[in-house]
Formats: sequence, structure tokens, C-alpha cells
Amino acid sequence: MSNTQIPYKIYIDESEMPRAWYNLRADMKNKPAPLLDPDTKQPMTAEHLSGVFCDELIAQELDDKNAYYDIPDEIRDFYKMYRPAPLVRAYCLEKKLGTPAKIYYKFEGNNTSGSHKLNSAIAQAYYAKKQGLVGVTTETGAGQWGTALSMACSYFGLDCKVYMVKCSYEQKPHRREVMRTYGASVTPSPSMETEIGRKILSEHPGTVGSLGCAISEAVEKAKATEGYRYVLGSVLNQVMLHQSIIGLETKIALDKYGIKPDVIIGCAGGGSNLGGLIAPFMGEKIRGEADYRIIAVEPESCPSFTRGKYAYDFCDTGMVCPLSKMYTLGSSFMPAPTHAGGLRYHGMNSTLSQLYSDGLMEATTVKQTEVFAAAEEFARVEGILPAPESSHAIKVALDIAKECAKTGEEKTIVFGLTGTGYFDMMSYEKFHNGIMTDYVPADEEIQKSLSKLPTVE
Amino acid sequence: MSNTQIPYKIYIDESEMPRAWYNLRADMKNKPAPLLDPDTKQPMTAEHLSGVFCDELIAQELDDKNAYYDIPDEIRDFYKMYRPAPLVRAYCLEKKLGTPAKIYYKFEGNNTSGSHKLNSAIAQAYYAKKQGLVGVTTETGAGQWGTALSMACSYFGLDCKVYMVKCSYEQKPHRREVMRTYGASVTPSPSMETEIGRKILSEHPGTVGSLGCAISEAVEKAKATEGYRYVLGSVLNQVMLHQSIIGLETKIALDKYGIKPDVIIGCAGGGSNLGGLIAPFMGEKIRGEADYRIIAVEPESCPSFTRGKYAYDFCDTGMVCPLSKMYTLGSSFMPAPTHAGGLRYHGMNSTLSQLYSDGLMEATTVKQTEVFAAAEEFARVEGILPAPESSHAIKVALDIAKECAKTGEEKTIVFGLTGTGYFDMMSYEKFHNGIMTDYVPADEEIQKSLSKLPTVE
Repeated sequence: MSNTQIPYKIYIDESEMPRAWYNLRADMKNKPAPLLDPDTKQPMTAEHLSGVFCDELIAQELDDKNAYYDIPDEIRDFYKMYRPAPLVRAYCLEKKLGTPAKIYYKFEGNNTSGSHKLNSAIAQAYYAKKQGLVGVTTETGAGQWGTALSMACSYFGLDCKVYMVKCSYEQKPHRREVMRTYGASVTPSPSMETEIGRKILSEHPGTVGSLGCAISEAVEKAKATEGYRYVLGSVLNQVMLHQSIIGLETKIALDKYGIKPDVIIGCAGGGSNLGGLIAPFMGEKIRGEADYRIIAVEPESCPSFTRGKYAYDFCDTGMVCPLSKMYTLGSSFMPAPTHAGGLRYHGMNSTLSQLYSDGLMEATTVKQTEVFAAAEEFARVEGILPAPESSHAIKVALDIAKECAKTGEEKTIVFGLTGTGYFDMMSYEKFHNGIMTDYVPADEEIQKSLSKLPTVE
Repeated sequence: MSNTQIPYKIYIDESEMPRAWYNLRADMKNKPAPLLDPDTKQPMTAEHLSGVFCDELIAQELDDKNAYYDIPDEIRDFYKMYRPAPLVRAYCLEKKLGTPAKIYYKFEGNNTSGSHKLNSAIAQAYYAKKQGLVGVTTETGAGQWGTALSMACSYFGLDCKVYMVKCSYEQKPHRREVMRTYGASVTPSPSMETEIGRKILSEHPGTVGSLGCAISEAVEKAKATEGYRYVLGSVLNQVMLHQSIIGLETKIALDKYGIKPDVIIGCAGGGSNLGGLIAPFMGEKIRGEADYRIIAVEPESCPSFTRGKYAYDFCDTGMVCPLSKMYTLGSSFMPAPTHAGGLRYHGMNSTLSQLYSDGLMEATTVKQTEVFAAAEEFARVEGILPAPESSHAIKVALDIAKECAKTGEEKTIVFGLTGTGYFDMMSYEKFHNGIMTDYVPADEEIQKSLSKLPTVE
């Protein structure tokens, strides 16, 4: 089919939307390693996890056998309010770059949470409601996940208790107010509401908080409150399962026009967006039905894949969560204060870690300042003002497309545009004013945190 | 066709997108009164306007004969990046309200400018570029229009000089940085760059600026700079012409499913969104082909239609622009500092004014606090966090739908959801904290400003 027939935005019909999520683990020859209990170092069972997580979500988390999970009608109805997300052909960008490459991006920003996070938030809220729970707790840093969860809970009439890292609570009042609009209770962390919060506040009275501390408070609150559970927006395999909707829709849209990508690119923090985008394509690759070059892009300041170790580690800096085998910089690694908050995570989803270890995908790093330059270049021709996280993928897509302009190769590039940057304008301001810096962690720094990894036989 | 076949979001195909804008004035029996020169009180000619506005835009402004204007391919290509805008069936809201009414909204917020303003910005930038101009100037208050124009100019490689009311420049740095991302030069107004700015600053050294002053600076700058013209985002008939894309797309989407609206609702500030939404429907009504109830919603604090006078007045508080016959509160009327900045305008588009005077549409007012309550009610079930301006239409749509729940009437309601409220979260915060107030201008206040209307025979 000729290019002129491909519209600027491919919207699949509502009737074509996926009816099941895809569980990539079912097709993997080498399965991701199981979660371990940090005390016994034995695999976590559903029973172990049930006081913290919702029952059906635990089943999804532990399942590496079933390839498909039917999406319940209630979730599909909600999806229909903001999905299908468009697969955009970047005609204007191609023209500007003078490249023979064909560039597509799956845009997940057309919803109030501003990102793909809503895809899993609505699923997690649904299963919590179905279990008869009263509410859920979670933590949020910059606020994307907290916003998504607030929207989802509001829809199903669930209480939503968000512990927001105190410095973000004060510096990012906009996100906080979006959450309040959706009826969430937002508490600056550390707080006096939990034992761990009170302990930290008495030891460090002036602390501005951390994500690790907020997780610990949210988990404690969920365990201590009747009818509550804790939910998490990334890293876990259940989240990657829900996010497969991104890749499934992308594939349906591409297939509709007979388009076969050469390269698929996504930014990688905890891995939920990348894992969701690539899921069906990686499935084909594993089953030998197709081949794709798949690239994870991470910030140079937090290079889990590229400079981390594939080992068991805590998922959280507070060391209350289970151990996961993953590429990690060590749970005590403190990422530099870069502006892509969603990518400042020491570890990586365990499924993606296994795939990377098996050589089925690549990873690369980019510098913060070149990421913002790419974001601006993109925004000026494609209109959309991207989130700093998403712009990591844009940077690599632009590099490949520019290379094609030199070589004349007509590569087909697909990347994930996970969200918008409307709540990141103070970061853009730093870039505009030329006062943004880059961070490269020293080898000794990484070695130091890696030396504290838990010992697992 | 049964309701079950109507999707949550009706996206018309790219190939179905309108190829021409619709000029409602051509079908009006009573034409809107012409713009007058404030000095001579004679109708403005193209020659009079040519130093300030672009030539083709002047032609559009003065034309009440031609019903259609072909949309140039360059503009259609840009439209394809963020249009068609979805016509959404508010299934979730209907269910929540338990109403037999069928609610649809045309959502214009899925673009970085966050509103419908981009529809006219890209047209105005195109004609400026085509005329061989170097750049354009404009003013912006809260920043929606400035953002839209920045995006449009960046696309066509035009300079964009925005005078931003100083208090907004300082209090709304996010919008300012969006404009800078698109390469616009943003100057706090009053500035030392213009004669009028220097004069105001010397007389009132601590002033935080006003829209009237920013307009005066932008017009002076455009007149004084070789290759520059001034552009405006609302009020003018050329803007309403471009915004007809909203109504045309809405009509195509409705026709596709055989849906006939009973009521069409839009918020009204300068009138561009309302005029654009209703254009093709009003055309049918005038031609006697169909009947619709059409409602303009304005803030109680700035009731141009409902408490203003139909008379010639200055379009701007600075009294540098032409006189327009319209519903006005007087150009010296100072609207209270409410949070729907886009509706704080003393006058109204002249076409809509004529239609209202002829009894072809209704107008109503709503209170600020009930607008935010409606916004929150809407957001919690429909996901989208609306702009305060758009929420005026939501409030009236909700009222009618709730009335239908009582009476059992199955009315079909269509309203314009002009944009998102992401940059209005500090206003939402005031609402959440219970410190938002309502404003009703006293009769004497309106009489005082109306007593200063210019004298026209």
C-alpha cells in the first residue's frame, strides 16, 4: 500500500480495540526469575502477597503461563473514553528532517493523567473494587501515577490515598490539585500518619522526603487499614500486562496498513511503557515469526540496563518490597535530580531484564540536555509538547531518522510517546535559560550501591 | 440507528474532514453591522485596515457574501496533526446522572495549546507567511491564544512576538515557557519596547498591566516594524470563520449516525468558539431547514449578552481598534478577576450579536462556584479535566440533562468542550479550599461604563 494512503493519525475503530491483554511471559523460553521473600529468600506465594496487593492482581503477577487475559467490560468502557490512542505518522517531522525514514509514534498523552499510566491504574482500581475493597494507597513523586490512580478510583468510587514526596507536594501544586479534583486524599510524605513517617520525621525534622519513604508509608497504611490494599504504577509484571494494550493497538493499526517496523523504541524507567509497547512484537520475535530491532532508552544519569548488574535486589529504596531479579544500580543508588522523574529508578521490570539478558533487545543512554533539545525540535513541527521521559525515545528516533537522511535508508521507526510535558514547564524553563546540566554517575558511586545488594543463593 | 451502535468517540475520517470553512454571514438575512473607523465613524475599508492586519484576513473580515472559503492544503495538513477533534458521547456521565438525555461534546482540547484557539492561529499564521511577512505580534492574558499562535508561527517559520500581561507573565510561568518552547519572544506588558508601554510605566511604575495595554503595545509594534502585522484570537469575524471547522466536523459526525441535536450549548467570551460550533446549525436554522435551541453561556461576572447594550463600541479597552456593533458592557467595564480568563471580555462578536438581537439564540449566565462544581462532577466520570471557560457550557448541559432525568425527556444535547484546565489548577485549588467567590456586577457599575460608549449616528 502506498504511503499517500496512510493518514496522519491512524485511529483504529472502537470495535477493533483489543479484547484481551497479552502476557508476554507465556511465550518466553527463559522466564523471568520469581519474586523472592526478602527474609526467607524463597519465592513469594500468593498468600505472602495477599495482605498488600489485591488478589486478582497477585494472580496476574505470578502467572507466566497464560498468554491472554480478557479485559473486563468495565475496563473496556473506561478505555473507550480515552482510547484507542492514535498511532501518528510524523509526516511533518520527516519533511523537516528530509529523511526517507518513516516515523510513527504511539501517543499516550491524550488523557488527563497525561500519560500511559492510566491504562494500568484503571485495571488495578477495577480489581480492588471487585474484591470489595474500600480503597487503595500508593506513593507518587512527580505525580503522574498518583493522578492516573485518582482518576481511576474516582470512576469506580474507591478511596484513594496518595503519599506524595514532600518536596513535590510543595513544588508541584498543580499535580496535587488535579488529584484533589478527582477526590484523592494527598498527604505530603513523610507524614505523622504512619509509624515509619513519624520515625523519619523525629530523626530528620527538616526532610523533604523520598520515593522510598513514601512507598513505605503507603504499604504500612494499606496493611494497617481494613479494606485497603497497596497499588504500584510500574516495575511489576501485572502493570506490564495491562500496558500491553499500547503495543496491541499499535500492531492492529500497523497491520491495517501493512506496515512492518524495523525499529521500535521506548524510554525505560521501571519498564511498564516499554514493556507494553513492545509486547506483541517481542512475542513474534521470540516465536520466530518476525524480527525487530528493539531499543530501550534510559537517562545517562540512571543507567540500569547499560551499567547496572543483573541480580536480585529490592524493588524499593525502603527495602520493604520483595526482591526481584533485574538490572539494577542497587536500591541505595540515588539518581541525580534530573527532570525525567519517571525514569529515576534504580531497577527495571524483571521480564524486560530477562529479555535484555537474552540479547533480544538493546539499550542505550542519552544526556538530559540533548533530550530537551530533541523535545523542542519535535514539538515545533509535530505540535505535541512531550514529557521529558518520552523525549528520551524521541531523541533516539531522531538520531536514527537523521542517519537515514545520510544513508538513504527507508527505515520504518516506531516509538512510544508516553505523555505530555504540561506539568514539566519549569524544567523546560531551565533548558531555555541554558542552566540545565547533565549528570553521569561515577563508577565508584554505582559500585558502592551495588556492593550493598542482598545476598541470594 | 440505535444508540448501541454509536461509539464513545466519533472520529470522522481524515478524508471526511471539511475542505472549506463556512461563512455564516453569507446566509444571514440581517447582516452584522460593519466595523467603523473610530475617528470618522465611517465603515472601515480594506485600505484602512491593511497596515495592521494581513490582506487576506481583511478580505475575510469584510466579506458577508461568500458562504465558503477553501481551506488551503497547508492548513489542512496542520489540522490533520490534531484534528479531527472527537465528538464524544458522554455515556458515563449519562449513566451517572440517570438521565434519558443523550449528551455529546465536541472536545477541542487534544492539542498542546489546550484549546480551539489553534484552529484560527494556524490560519492567521499561514496568511501572514503567504503575504511574505516576517512576523506577527499579539497580546495574551492567561496565555491560551499566545500558545496557539506560537505553535502556528513555529510551524511556518514566522517570528512571533507576544505581549503578555505582566501579572500573568509572573504568575503563570508555565504558559510562558510553552510559548518559549515554540520559539516565541514573550515580553511582559507594559514594556519599555513601545511608546505606549514607556508612557504607562512612567505614569504607573508599579503597574501589573492589562489586556488593553498589551493590545496597544502589540498594535504599535506591528505598525512600527517592517514586515509585521497584528493578529487577534477572538471577537473578529475572520476568527469565527476559521472556527467553523468545529461545527462542520460536529455536523459531519452527527450526520454519520443520523443524530439531530435538540440543544446546542457553548460558552461565550469573545464568541469565537460558540460561533464556530453553531455556524452550520445556525445556517440551517436561518434557511428554515432545521430548528435548534442554541444557548450562549456567559459568566455572571461579565454578562455581555444578558445585561449589555447592543451598540457600537471599541473592541479593546485601549480604544485603538475599530468600533464594532455588538452586545457590550462598555469598553471601560472592568470584569472581576474570575478564573475563566477567556470569558472576561466586555463585548461580543458582531455576528453573534446580530443573531441574538434577532432572537435566533438564547443566552444565560452562571456563577463561578457552580461552574467549578460542574467541572469537577464532569471530570470525575468523563476523565477530562475541563478549562474553566468550557465548564460554563458543562454547567448548563448538566442542568438540562438533570431536568430530563426528572421529566423523562430524551433530549439530545451537544456542547462545546473548548479545552483543558491543566494550566488552571491554582483556580481549582481555590475551589477545593472553599475560598472561591462569586461576582455580580452592580447595575450602577454597568451603567457607568455604558455611559461612556462612543457616539455613533
